[in-house]
Order: sequence, then structure tokens, then C-alpha cells
Amino acid sequence: MTTAEKIKKYEDWVFRVSAYSMALSIIGIDKMTVAPPGGAAYRDEREAFLSGELFSIETDPEIIEILGELKDDETIDPATRRAAQLYHRNAMNTVCIPKEEYVAFRRLQNESYDAWLSAKSKDDYSLFAPYLQKVIETQKKMYGYRKSDMDIYDQMLDDFEPGMNREKYDAFFAALKERLVPLIQCVAKATPLNKSCLSQHFAIEKQKQFTKHLLAYLHFDKEWGYQNETEHPFTSWTCENDCRTTTKYVEDNLISVILSTVHEVGHATYEHDVAPEFDGMILSEGISSGMHESQSRLFENYLGRSLPFWQANYPLLQETFSPQLANVGVEEFVAAMNASRPGLVRTEADELTYPMHILIRYELEKALFSGNLSTEGLDRVWDDMYEKYLGVRAEKASESILQDVHWADGSFGYFPTYALGSAFAAQFVAKMKEDIDVDEALRDNRFDLCVAWLKEHVHRHGCMYDADEIMRIATGKPFDVNIYLDYLEEKYTRLYGLKEEK
Amino acid sequence: MTTAEKIKKYEDWVFRVSAYSMALSIIGIDKMTVAPPGGAAYRDEREAFLSGELFSIETDPEIIEILGELKDDETIDPATRRAAQLYHRNAMNTVCIPKEEYVAFRRLQNESYDAWLSAKSKDDYSLFAPYLQKVIETQKKMYGYRKSDMDIYDQMLDDFEPGMNREKYDAFFAALKERLVPLIQCVAKATPLNKSCLSQHFAIEKQKQFTKHLLAYLHFDKEWGYQNETEHPFTSWTCENDCRTTTKYVEDNLISVILSTVHEVGHATYEHDVAPEFDGMILSEGISSGMHESQSRLFENYLGRSLPFWQANYPLLQETFSPQLANVGVEEFVAAMNASRPGLVRTEADELTYPMHILIRYELEKALFSGNLSTEGLDRVWDDMYEKYLGVRAEKASESILQDVHWADGSFGYFPTYALGSAFAAQFVAKMKEDIDVDEALRDNRFDLCVAWLKEHVHRHGCMYDADEIMRIATGKPFDVNIYLDYLEEKYTRLYGLKEEK
Repeated sequence: MTTAEKIKKYEDWVFRVSAYSMALSIIGIDKMTVAPPGGAAYRDEREAFLSGELFSIETDPEIIEILGELKDDETIDPATRRAAQLYHRNAMNTVCIPKEEYVAFRRLQNESYDAWLSAKSKDDYSLFAPYLQKVIETQKKMYGYRKSDMDIYDQMLDDFEPGMNREKYDAFFAALKERLVPLIQCVAKATPLNKSCLSQHFAIEKQKQFTKHLLAYLHFDKEWGYQNETEHPFTSWTCENDCRTTTKYVEDNLISVILSTVHEVGHATYEHDVAPEFDGMILSEGISSGMHESQSRLFENYLGRSLPFWQANYPLLQETFSPQLANVGVEEFVAAMNASRPGLVRTEADELTYPMHILIRYELEKALFSGNLSTEGLDRVWDDMYEKYLGVRAEKASESILQDVHWADGSFGYFPTYALGSAFAAQFVAKMKEDIDVDEALRDNRFDLCVAWLKEHVHRHGCMYDADEIMRIATGKPFDVNIYLDYLEEKYTRLYGLKEEK
Repeated sequence: MTTAEKIKKYEDWVFRVSAYSMALSIIGIDKMTVAPPGGAAYRDEREAFLSGELFSIETDPEIIEILGELKDDETIDPATRRAAQLYHRNAMNTVCIPKEEYVAFRRLQNESYDAWLSAKSKDDYSLFAPYLQKVIETQKKMYGYRKSDMDIYDQMLDDFEPGMNREKYDAFFAALKERLVPLIQCVAKATPLNKSCLSQHFAIEKQKQFTKHLLAYLHFDKEWGYQNETEHPFTSWTCENDCRTTTKYVEDNLISVILSTVHEVGHATYEHDVAPEFDGMILSEGISSGMHESQSRLFENYLGRSLPFWQANYPLLQETFSPQLANVGVEEFVAAMNASRPGLVRTEADELTYPMHILIRYELEKALFSGNLSTEGLDRVWDDMYEKYLGVRAEKASESILQDVHWADGSFGYFPTYALGSAFAAQFVAKMKEDIDVDEALRDNRFDLCVAWLKEHVHRHGCMYDADEIMRIATGKPFDVNIYLDYLEEKYTRLYGLKEEK
């Protein structure tokens, strides 16, 4: 076969993969947003079958051979070579699994998601525990097929964040613990910031009005994006011009919808801004979970919680909720939304305690996969960990072990990327601030200038380079966790007037 | 191959077909409700490819052979035999088309839909005309492949309503014209009914509140159904427990959302109530377009526009819109919503003038497919027909030739089933009223009793019998258009006090 023939076969195959991927993506979005629950079993069974169809396409021996050749072919263009490498890696990780087990696992994932949703609504971990147990056992079996030298949990970590493993994460979290635990303790002893202005009654209709304005400020365009409502906000996409987010309105919490909107738009913007020539192929996505989370958290924390951001947006917010915010100045509002207080729910955590939520999940996952921990009684272990690290204990399973969706479909190794992403973001922001006047852009309704910087230095690359390369390209140096820790220390020392105590 | 082996192959195949059909259904719903327009071209191309995958499955020669044997096999159960007959008929109509032309037509349908949507929003028929022309030409070619003795438009009519053709529809519409044209003229000369109470300002949020109540009254359950919003209300489904409707809120029109809700719930209830053992196969759907429309129009016109229906629901409506409806009694409200006035838009037409809207479309379709009429200047011909039959002339293309979606994807022959369905409904209602006290059920919040009658006599059969058989099973006699015409004559004579004039 000539190279041109190989490329032709490869391109036809990429199109087929993209068609099935699109269908599965839309079926998934539909399931999580609007699909009537009564039809879940019917749909899930067929979704699993279609996943099996994609499995067959992706593991076609002829294609694996072609990918194996293209990935090392120095005569073809670098983007195709890079894409072939990534496709080949995925195919090798998939082809070792018997198809019927793969399809059965998809079915299990769907069932487990439904069981989690129902268990959460009933606040009953025991309804979910058997599924969690089965998902863990099946994941161990699935990863076992790879016959890798790596430990199974290391493989999972590597899947979500290529290059990462327990050793590196242990070092990362050790660095976090070393500097954040004392900082959290100092903040706990300091005079608390008044957050009461954020938890009054805020009519949902008015929150919706303000969210519309916020989406415009963020340059989130209906032409390529949309925002729906779900219990658990997420972002999903089918292509460059189809990036969807969801959010959730809470009547007695003003910043929940605001921060989740800004966060998810960060994900969506990353997907939208990948170079259009990558559309429809593997290069068109964010390179890793950590890199994705870096963009959403950069939007949410570094921009969305900043004073200049609210100097632009607070007048309208205050006008929208005039009785509630009449006597709250913009500085006071920004301080309130940055106040740190240990809590039960990860997605509602402040920037400072957030990494502790992740640390807990990381330690639990390690123990679950080393065999030291069982799903039986895991809810109590969870609560004990929260007591140990954050000094709080939940009364409801929906606010403790059932709060997150990730384990329901077997996404172990995903959580650690959330902490890593927050740390990546600090380094991007530091560099962005060297290049452009971020504060002025935010104040002047020029959020697009921040987006343009990110597009140029991060987003457009898609999967063309690994995360560590993108970090180097964008910031000129390798990832350094201290930039993140310095940022948190400076911010919270200032916010709580801790300077003298240090 | 033994019969058991054939049945096994057949059942595996039915499952595969149902999986692809589900995916395409969800992609279609997504496109029409929430999908960002910027991604349309990307998605449409892949949707067309997946339609081609289904085409290949449906036209697999081995399966066509098995279907051909099963459809006449008296030893197998009647439901499987009936399903094999219907699948075989569809496969024979499809297998004659070259696959690449089939896929190209799917692409064209998607593009044409997008062009129609854009043309409608810009009120510019010229943006849509080239697509319409191409769709008509392609449909002629597609139907030509069947090498049927039947005229092409007759084949289209038969596809939507098996057994129907131009000869039968000509007779049907002649009967309508003979009795309805004089009636419409009498009504036009009578003292007009006051409709002004319906066109005040009605806050959308309050309309939404009332719609929630209405859905509960109709026994439309979130477990198996949902309601979304779209510019053009429709109903779609993937299985027994997944039947979706959409509606549209209009600020200065109170009954638009009410009637469209009741109408679409009629469609959804039909799909939901088909016998569960048919789920996932061809028998699980409504038998024909006319039969489907009979159910939606039965809900909308015969129940939803009746006094007993509003004796149950008006108190809440009046309370919801207390300033606007304070001085409007329930009889006055029902008279207003039944008032007849020739208008431009089919979906907003009253019961009496509605068939005229259909007649216009039927005559245009006949002329388009006999070659007597071209798409160039078709907008003017449309307007002339409205002037001739209804005495009104549109100023905007969005209210004339661009108002309906059906032609955009080539659904010619569909419209006539709307008039037929209204007529079917009259006969079902007459029989239902012999069996149960419909008025009392509506007044007593027992809409479920009407649904139960329809389920028992119509819905549960799905595609097990042809429409004319179901009519006989349900009402004890063949379809008789005079029941419909008697109903309209009685209703409008009474409503406008015409008795003496006749």
C-alpha cells in the first residue's frame, strides 16, 4: 500500500470514528439533560451496542497496522503523524479487551450512572454500593487486559493525564499539604469574612437574566455554544462549533450559577478554540483532563473571582438584585465570594480548601485499587477523611460520597487532574499577566483579550503537543507547583490580613 | 435455515435497526431543539453517514430473504409475521436506491432544513427555493427507482397513509368542499364571536406555570415524556417510555401554547400506549400519519376545545391571569377559542377553516409532482390560493409558503393526512361517547378515562393492523367522512346561531 493509499484509508476511518463518536456524544448529552428516565434501560442497551460498533471500527486490525506505520512515518505531515500516534495508543489500549466485555461494561456504566442518580436523590449509599463494587472490579479486569508493567491505578492516572502516576501525584499533593494545611489553619483562626450577602433569596428568573448577560460578557456565542440546566453542570461537545455547557440555579445561593457558568464556559471555550483544521479528528480535543480543568478553573477562579471582573459586572448584578445587594460594595462582594470555609461539597468549595477535597478522593482511589479498601463502609471512611482533613462531617450521603458522578462510570484517576489543573492555571495566568493587562481587559469588557491570549498560547494546539510541552510553549518553563502555592498564599494572606502572623 | 434460526437472525437484526434508529432519532431531536447552529454542517454530514449505515443494515440481502419468508409463514406468531411484512415492504422500497444517492439525499434533507430555517427567519423564499427544487427533483428520482406502476405522488400518499391515493383524496376533499365552503360562508356572514380576550398580554412565566398544570391534567408523566420549547412544536420518540413533545410560548396569544401542548401530548400518548411487547420493533409506532394526527387532533379539538374540558381547567387559568380574564366567563372563553376566522397560518387555524389550509397544500403538491407547477414563483401561487380559498393574502413569506417545515425534507403527501386525521377523530369520538361519559370525565379531572378508552381501542394496536382495520375494530364500521362533516356543521351552526338560516 502506498502512503497515499494509507492516508486515504486513514481519513475515511477518521470520518467513521467521528460519526459514531458524535452520535454517542449526543446520546450522552441527551441522557444527562432531558431524556425521560423511564426510557433509560431501552436507550442504554442500544447505546452500549453502538459503543460496540465504534469499538469494532477502532480496533480494525488493518487500521491498527496503518496507524502503526503512519505514527512513525517522517514523510507525512506532523499533524497526521501525531494524530496517528494518539489513535494508535488508544487502539492498543482497547483492542486487548474482548468486545462483548467492552459492551457489557458500557451497559454497566450506564446502569451504574442511573443507580447513582437514584441513590443520590434518595440519600442512600447502599443503593449505589453494589454498582460501585462491580465497576471497580470490572475496571481492574479491563486494565488487566493491557498487560502493562504499570500498576493499574497508575495506568488510570496516565489515561487522564499522560505522564502522571502515583509517585508524581504523591509529590504534588505533599507540596500542597506542606504549604496549604498551615495556611488553612491560619485562615480558620482569622476573623471570618462575612459571606451572608451571598445566601439571601435570589429569584431564579432574575438569576437567568443575569446569566444571559454574563454569557455575553464571556463571549460565549449561541452560534457555537449553548447552556442548558442540569443537576450536575458539565460541558460536552461534538465539534469546533458545537460546545455545550450546563448549569444549575440555586435560589438561596447567588454565586453557584455564576461560578459554574464561568467554569463550564472555560471548558467550552478551550474546545471551540482548537485550530479548525483539527476538527473531526483526535487532535481537536483538549490534550488532557488537567489541561482542560486548568482552563475552566482559570476562568472561574483567576478571572471570575477577581475584583476587575466584578468592577465590570457588579453594577448590573447589584441592579438586578437591588434590595439584596443595595448595601454591599463590590470589594465586599468579591471578598465574600473568595471567603474560605471548610465545607462538604467539592463543587462549592473555595479555592483554598478545594485541593483538600481532591486529596481525599485521591487517597481513597489509591486505597480502593491497592485492595486495602472495600466499597462496603466506604461512606464512613469518606466521612472520616472529611473530618480529618476539613473538620466537617456530612449528615447526608448526597453531600458526601454520592456528591460526585465520576466513580459511577468508573472514571478513577480523574479527580487528581482537578487539583493539577488549578495549579497549571496559576502558571498560565502569571505569564498572561506579563503579556497583557488582564485587569484592564476584565474591567473594560474585553474578556475576549484573555480568550485570545489563551487561544494563541494554549487552546489552538489541541492535542498536537502533550500537556507539559504546552506548558513550556505557553509559559517558557516547565510546570512549577510553587507558582500556584505562592498565588494562594499571597491571596489568602492579603484577604484575611494574615501578613503579620506569618 | 430452520424457522428458529431465521427468527434468531431476524431478532438480532431488529435490535440493530432499533439501535441505529434510536441514535438518529435523538440526533434529530437534538438538531431541532438545542444543537448550536454553527455545528450543523458537521453534524449533518455525519448524520447522513449514519443513515447510510442503517440503510446497509436494512437492505442486507440475507435479511430481505428472511423477511420475505417470515412474512408469509403461517406457523409463526402473528405479531412477528405482521412486523416482517412491514419491514419487508420498507426494505423493498429502500433497497432499489443506490446507497450513495440515499446518503446524499439525507445530506440534502439536512441542508434543506437549515436553509428553510434561515429563509424563514429572513422572510425570504428565494433562499429556500433552490433547495425545494432540488428536493423535489431528488424525490422524483428516488421514487422512480421503485419501478412501481403507481404514479409518484400516489406512492408518496400511500407511504404516509397506506391505501390512500389521489383518487381517494380527491373524493375526500370534494366532500369537504361541498359542505364546508357554504358553512364557512355562512359563518363569515354571521355576527363574529369576540376573540379579544385571547390576545392580551400573558406573561410567559405564568403560561409556563399553567402548562405544568395542564400536563398533569392530561396525565403526561415526566417518567416517560418531556416537553421542551421550539419554534415549531413537534413530537418525537425513541421507545414506549421516551416520548417527547415541544411547544412554543407566544406572549400575546393565550391559547397557542395550550392547544399545541394538548395536540402534541395526543401524539405522545399514542406512542406511549402501544402494547409494550412491541417495543423496539416496527409494530411499536402509530400505524399511519392520518391515524397519528387523528389522536393529536382528537386531544386538541374534540377534547381540548370543549366546554367540559374548561369547566375543569378554567378556574385555574382565570386565577393565573386574573386581571386579563376577570370578566370572561368559561362559556365566553370556550366560544372565543372556537371562533372561526380565515387566517394565514395553518397551525393557528380554527377547526372549520383548517381543512382549507390542507386542501391548498394538497393541490399544490399534486401540481408540483405532475410537472404543471415549478418552484419558481411558487410563493405567489401559494398566496393566490389563499386568496381564492380563504380570502386572505400574506405579507410575509414566513406566514405563507415558509410557514411549514414539511417540504424542506421532502415530506410530500404528508399534509393530506392532517385533514384525514381530523375526520378519523370525529368517528372515534362519536364511538367513545357511546361507551363512556366523556364530558363527565373531562369535568371530573378524569382525562385518564378518555386515554384508557383510546388505549384499549386504538393505541395499543400500534402497527398490528392497518388504519382502516383499526377504524373498524374501534368503531364497528368503516371510515365515514360524514360523521366529521355532521360534527362541524352541528358545532358551528350552534356556535354562531345559524340554525334558522339553514
